[in-house]
Amino acid sequence: MKRTVKDIANLLNAQVLGDEQFEITGVSSFEDAITHELAFAVDPKFLNNMDQTKAGALVVPDSFAMDDPNAVIPVLLKTNNPKLDFFRVVSLFHPDKKREAFTSSKASIGENFNAGKNVTIEANVFIGSNVTLGNNVYIMPNVFIGDDSLLGDNTVIKPNVTIMERTMIGKDVIVHSGTVIGSDGFGFARASDTHEKLIHTGFVKIGDQVEIGACNTIDRGTLGMTLIEKGTKTDNQVHIAHNVKIGENSLVVAQVGIAGSSTIGKNVILAGKAGISGHITIGDSAIVGPYAGVHSDVPANEIVSGIPHLPHKKWLKVVNTISRLPQMRKKLQLLEKKINDLENKK
Amino acid sequence: MKRTVKDIANLLNAQVLGDEQFEITGVSSFEDAITHELAFAVDPKFLNNMDQTKAGALVVPDSFAMDDPNAVIPVLLKTNNPKLDFFRVVSLFHPDKKREAFTSSKASIGENFNAGKNVTIEANVFIGSNVTLGNNVYIMPNVFIGDDSLLGDNTVIKPNVTIMERTMIGKDVIVHSGTVIGSDGFGFARASDTHEKLIHTGFVKIGDQVEIGACNTIDRGTLGMTLIEKGTKTDNQVHIAHNVKIGENSLVVAQVGIAGSSTIGKNVILAGKAGISGHITIGDSAIVGPYAGVHSDVPANEIVSGIPHLPHKKWLKVVNTISRLPQMRKKLQLLEKKINDLENKK
Amino acid sequence: MKRTVKDIANLLNAQVLGDEQFEITGVSSFEDAITHELAFAVDPKFLNNMDQTKAGALVVPDSFAMDDPNAVIPVLLKTNNPKLDFFRVVSLFHPDKKREAFTSSKASIGENFNAGKNVTIEANVFIGSNVTLGNNVYIMPNVFIGDDSLLGDNTVIKPNVTIMERTMIGKDVIVHSGTVIGSDGFGFARASDTHEKLIHTGFVKIGDQVEIGACNTIDRGTLGMTLIEKGTKTDNQVHIAHNVKIGENSLVVAQVGIAGSSTIGKNVILAGKAGISGHITIGDSAIVGPYAGVHSDVPANEIVSGIPHLPHKKWLKVVNTISRLPQMRKKLQLLEKKINDLENKK
Repeated sequence: MKRTVKDIANLLNAQVLGDEQFEITGVSSFEDAITHELAFAVDPKFLNNMDQTKAGALVVPDSFAMDDPNAVIPVLLKTNNPKLDFFRVVSLFHPDKKREAFTSSKASIGENFNAGKNVTIEANVFIGSNVTLGNNVYIMPNVFIGDDSLLGDNTVIKPNVTIMERTMIGKDVIVHSGTVIGSDGFGFARASDTHEKLIHTGFVKIGDQVEIGACNTIDRGTLGMTLIEKGTKTDNQVHIAHNVKIGENSLVVAQVGIAGSSTIGKNVILAGKAGISGHITIGDSAIVGPYAGVHSDVPANEIVSGIPHLPHKKWLKVVNTISRLPQMRKKLQLLEKKINDLENKK
Repeated sequence: MKRTVKDIANLLNAQVLGDEQFEITGVSSFEDAITHELAFAVDPKFLNNMDQTKAGALVVPDSFAMDDPNAVIPVLLKTNNPKLDFFRVVSLFHPDKKREAFTSSKASIGENFNAGKNVTIEANVFIGSNVTLGNNVYIMPNVFIGDDSLLGDNTVIKPNVTIMERTMIGKDVIVHSGTVIGSDGFGFARASDTHEKLIHTGFVKIGDQVEIGACNTIDRGTLGMTLIEKGTKTDNQVHIAHNVKIGENSLVVAQVGIAGSSTIGKNVILAGKAGISGHITIGDSAIVGPYAGVHSDVPANEIVSGIPHLPHKKWLKVVNTISRLPQMRKKLQLLEKKINDLENKK
Repeated sequence: MKRTVKDIANLLNAQVLGDEQFEITGVSSFEDAITHELAFAVDPKFLNNMDQTKAGALVVPDSFAMDDPNAVIPVLLKTNNPKLDFFRVVSLFHPDKKREAFTSSKASIGENFNAGKNVTIEANVFIGSNVTLGNNVYIMPNVFIGDDSLLGDNTVIKPNVTIMERTMIGKDVIVHSGTVIGSDGFGFARASDTHEKLIHTGFVKIGDQVEIGACNTIDRGTLGMTLIEKGTKTDNQVHIAHNVKIGENSLVVAQVGIAGSSTIGKNVILAGKAGISGHITIGDSAIVGPYAGVHSDVPANEIVSGIPHLPHKKWLKVVNTISRLPQMRKKLQLLEKKINDLENKK
């Protein structure tokens, strides 16, 4: 595939600096690109080192200006969201493979199955009773879908995913491999010496445009639902317990765990390995730092860090002081001695 | 399904306050229940806000008494374990689906297979040689069971579980989806520049009434066994390394990791994300707090928290002080100056 | 199977103390071994307590010498790597099961499939188009291998593994169950209110003699590759994000997470639950302690611990002081009072 810079600029509504007829044959990163490839640059470490890429053309921010107008640089395409726009070109050069609509003879389909148009069901898929799939749904090999589940249009389920009974999944959802949705929550009641299992009658509901990473575990509600709202994305190995609610367009990074019945707002970021205790609320647009342990409510727009969590700025000061603790202790001992001396001298 | 309060009270051996003929049509939570549904309340935040539920009836503790005897409240059923009793009613309203006993033609069964009565083996299950299943065992789709394994009566293996060779699983066990039992431990010996794999000849043994969450990894013993004793429950994404022993009725919460050859007592609670180092012992009825990092033995009945762990009460004091560290440092500098002044004045 | 001590000593090139004709019938651990079994001892706690094993023979270090030359002890085999040598004997007593070369009729194989000699493909395996397998490759049940993937000679893929398209795996690799290789990275670009998915066109490359634990998630490169070099081993539940590079012979312990585009050197050890931020570099032979949170580059040969990480020795001092914080605070208050008294007296 070949495209001129002009074609790409039209697609992106970009302003071009340099040869509009320059031919682009592929896409790559700033570091790896070769002569006729397109890359992008947003960080100053790239923008200030244009001579270090071999890319033939770069998508850069509107605001970018070269210090030296005579420098030999790649052709530039200026836009107001270079990363997003670059990946639009990536999609252009890597179109989705055409997928045939079919149901494998090695799939098992239960009673009362309802499928939309252009559905693909691959080998070794197991679909229970009363399952409904929207148009263009793609179920990859070795997936399990339990009874009474519903998947919306264009949803893709990658191989080896488990979706237990009564799960409701919206449109344009992607679920990556190894993930388990609708497992029983960790709910027991003490009965003399043993832990008696509480029957979990709830379910999981996942909104449109949600993407769930690989090897997530999302438990069903004990009673009622576990809910992940529209546009939220989870990374790999995320654990979401029973009755958790996550609002729209939040980002949950790898290895985060959210305990039972907690509520996460919209546009929240939970950074990698953060842990959220049960029955708490994280407000809209809050950010929880990496490895943080959150044990109580976080107001909207707050940034918190640390175990247990503190407001981020306070935590930065604490962290800065912690490494000085041994010296502080020595100084404290010295001052104590000096004071004793002063007291004795009087 | 409909039941009168009287019927339910008889089942639970509960004392009724209110209309015994009131009809219950379903079960739900305190917040979500509607007019003819039963819920339960144990926490003061619910017990003191009875006007905020729409539930027609509530299971409450024996000891509960209303301040205002004329308040308009739901019908009350008093028992000494309201949560457990409520979930008994949940089971009544949500009976298990009837399961047919059969072996799918899409299952693969090895030589010398021994199965009890009423066994169900679903599609795409692979069972190796010399496997024995007890009565009423239920193997859901896409499960792998390796050679020489044994599963006791009434055990349920959810979809996409992997049980490697020579695993021994007791009666009434539930294993949730995505879990791997009997993988090789992380055991290597340094040989000049490389890590040479140690052959793992041990196995995993799981006692009766154990429940294993989704996406757990339980490694086989290097030599000898990895053991999870009767009644212990694990949450999702728990990692249990080679030769770990966990006693009876312990609770291991989500994303806990237990390193090789450690021994966990009975009735222990390991809270979410805790890490247990290798070759240590956690005594009976000990509690390890969330995100704790346990690097040495914990005596029976101790509560520990923090990374690295401290006795819980000490840790609470430390945590309370840590957020004051920046002020302490400033005060220390101020005192130092004052002392210098005092010394110089003399 | 039986072997004399002499036979085993010849195999290991070991020096024997005791009866060379003593017969060994099996292998076990120091604690569990019975009369005619071989065990090994390296730790002083074993070497100094020889009377506590029932093993008939022990592999011990060259340097080992008994205090009491008349003590009744097992037959000793002295070598310079007792653990490694012991496990060579374990392999002798537990030879690999013979595996038949075949392709199950329940497997699904795509177009343009290239397989070497002696390949085994079990039931419910799905192999996409243009896949190449080397000689002696063993694909266990319920594995998914995507289009255009390549697996080298002698590689073993355990049950329920997912290998997405265009993955390149070397020779003598083992991938344990539940692992996902080649999932999309967590890459989105903010577009007004939503997170727009970045298409991931990269791939994963895994070198020879790598072993990947159970339930790992290894994301493909966004552009370019995610790379795990020769001889590196990962434990269970490890997360490796897009474009991470790990050098040769490193060890990544359970529940470690490595964020996008970070580079880990060779011979590195990342201990259990450590978290590595994105876009940083860990130098060769560095060691990252358990539960550490690494937020910036770590030089070669450094040992770091803590959240956020510090040089290990400094961290030890800090940890030692942290538990004294409440007393330090009290002392600070006391000194402040004393100084005020001193100042007022003047």
